[in-house]
Amino acid sequence: MARSHEITFKYLSQEDLLRSGCLDFRMAIEAVESALRAHRAGKVLFPEKIVQIFNEETQERINCLPATLLEEGVCGMKWVSVFPPNVREGLQNLSALFVLSEIEHGFPIAVMEGTLCSNMRVGAVGATAAKYLAPEDARVIGFIGSGEQAKMHLLAMKTVRPGLEVCKVSAATPPEEEAFVEEMSRILPRMTFETAGTDGSKAMSDADILVTATSAQAPLLKAAWMKPGAFYSHIGGWEDEFAVAEQCDKIVCDDWETVKHRTQTLSRMYQAGELSDDDIHANLDEIVTGEKPGRTSAEERIYFNAVGLAFVDVAIALEMYRRAAGKHAGQTLTLQKCMIFEHPEIRHWVQFDF
Amino acid sequence: MARSHEITFKYLSQEDLLRSGCLDFRMAIEAVESALRAHRAGKVLFPEKIVQIFNEETQERINCLPATLLEEGVCGMKWVSVFPPNVREGLQNLSALFVLSEIEHGFPIAVMEGTLCSNMRVGAVGATAAKYLAPEDARVIGFIGSGEQAKMHLLAMKTVRPGLEVCKVSAATPPEEEAFVEEMSRILPRMTFETAGTDGSKAMSDADILVTATSAQAPLLKAAWMKPGAFYSHIGGWEDEFAVAEQCDKIVCDDWETVKHRTQTLSRMYQAGELSDDDIHANLDEIVTGEKPGRTSAEERIYFNAVGLAFVDVAIALEMYRRAAGKHAGQTLTLQKCMIFEHPEIRHWVQFDF
Repeated sequence: MARSHEITFKYLSQEDLLRSGCLDFRMAIEAVESALRAHRAGKVLFPEKIVQIFNEETQERINCLPATLLEEGVCGMKWVSVFPPNVREGLQNLSALFVLSEIEHGFPIAVMEGTLCSNMRVGAVGATAAKYLAPEDARVIGFIGSGEQAKMHLLAMKTVRPGLEVCKVSAATPPEEEAFVEEMSRILPRMTFETAGTDGSKAMSDADILVTATSAQAPLLKAAWMKPGAFYSHIGGWEDEFAVAEQCDKIVCDDWETVKHRTQTLSRMYQAGELSDDDIHANLDEIVTGEKPGRTSAEERIYFNAVGLAFVDVAIALEMYRRAAGKHAGQTLTLQKCMIFEHPEIRHWVQFDF
Repeated sequence: MARSHEITFKYLSQEDLLRSGCLDFRMAIEAVESALRAHRAGKVLFPEKIVQIFNEETQERINCLPATLLEEGVCGMKWVSVFPPNVREGLQNLSALFVLSEIEHGFPIAVMEGTLCSNMRVGAVGATAAKYLAPEDARVIGFIGSGEQAKMHLLAMKTVRPGLEVCKVSAATPPEEEAFVEEMSRILPRMTFETAGTDGSKAMSDADILVTATSAQAPLLKAAWMKPGAFYSHIGGWEDEFAVAEQCDKIVCDDWETVKHRTQTLSRMYQAGELSDDDIHANLDEIVTGEKPGRTSAEERIYFNAVGLAFVDVAIALEMYRRAAGKHAGQTLTLQKCMIFEHPEIRHWVQFDF
């Protein structure tokens, strides 16, 4: 029983993660594919998330999303807040934190900032879909929306389609478009950027890859703007007219059964009886494992919709932790030095007044 | 938009909590009562916990238990591992960690070691029950089991019944009993301790308060050992013969509806048709609010069984955080210095090779 009862874990801030090279979409996309394969092989525990809503009107909430990667021996959890009114105060809508534990003894191994991972997951899942579904020679990418998700999606798409040369962006206001271009042209100096002056058709009409990354609940994207052969990654809620999906040759989801019960465009179409199970070509894991084909012609239009799968978040967080730990980033924190009653000072610490 | 996007939170290790006086059962019991009242008043969100089991045979698992205290403006989560085989390796069965977030903007305020809080919660809930249900003049407390839970229960019971003078302990082996006495007599030097030489009847027969805190799945506690007027706090799973509960005048639970579906003694009795809803006097919150009476005679035997309510854990964790923060204990950690694409170094941090 002389075994030490000290338990330590690693804390990684967003800056620790960024500095140690975790904003790496090749790493994230590999983690996505590996997690999708593991899930398909029954090697993932993926319980229903817990949603706590504090305000029905504003939908302010904190979600708790655990998952276990059995082959990696890691159980993790994303703790993510979604507070839409924050944006009006100049604060971010979403904040997140991950906890990772090993499952040999059950002890925590990491607590990590989670917005980076969570936002990268959205981009990496879209890019994984694009890897199998977007035109090989995609040259032009168009955005409706210019926030963090749009920026992440651009980096992710450029990773799987390095031939992308032109990025067109449409946002609610011209200054938002300009800010996007200013920031992203510093990161991608060889890419040509075009602002659309808030005109969605200008951003989308010529695009090989279309991305809508907006919280606007309105059919901003029109079917007529999606050219034959294009790939569309839908990130938000309801932002495209029903005709977009109706016109597509293939519809792929990360998890169609979950999509059905949400409030995204495809969910609305399903609930309105305008879309059925038969209209869905595949879930993304079936494409990744090769059970169903990806793109099979240069002319087909393909629609991809993701709702988010927490085990994918945990898989990316784990890779980030491994990379950061390998570079000795972050802080090692002591959870406990020993068990409670083993502390020599315990009798002085107990608060008694009798 | 010049508003800072830095987010910080407090990290508190077990030693930070202990050093700042959080092993305080008056504080914990007040938090229990306040949380039970808030729950009864509908001011608590308390979703179903998520259980992930990694080994059906050993029941190794990690549970995720979130809850929100609406009046306190705090949403919290207990992340707790239960790995029974750890004990054979000289390691602790249980480890835990809490995350607390404010619900004005949704940002995290604390990450804390959680075994201390979780173990104190068990004791504090038992002691809250004892406050209303144990004899006022209780002098003798008896234990079957001598682990951390037994130690916590002794401190908690002494808080609500300072007249306790004698503590008798029975464990699986004499060295375990001796270790308990050695540790606890240092904390409670005026209490008289007696070891029972593994004979449960010696520890229990004269006790005003009986506590079973053991993982043994066997009917160790006999009805004949519980004298009239005594109060019994059942902590473990199945450790008392059915006749104990049958003989009691009142049975109180923390949450009878939950107890029904577990594997504790009362659950087994219910499932065997030997106990019905009518046999349950009250849930503890009904006693605390005065909706149902506590002890009404000096002769009645009262049985208390708790399964654990995560909102109570969160309430105690919150009080610990407040006390520790008030003493500037722990470390302030930066979750993020700014939003991802606001970092001036971002273009150097993105991992691109094209």
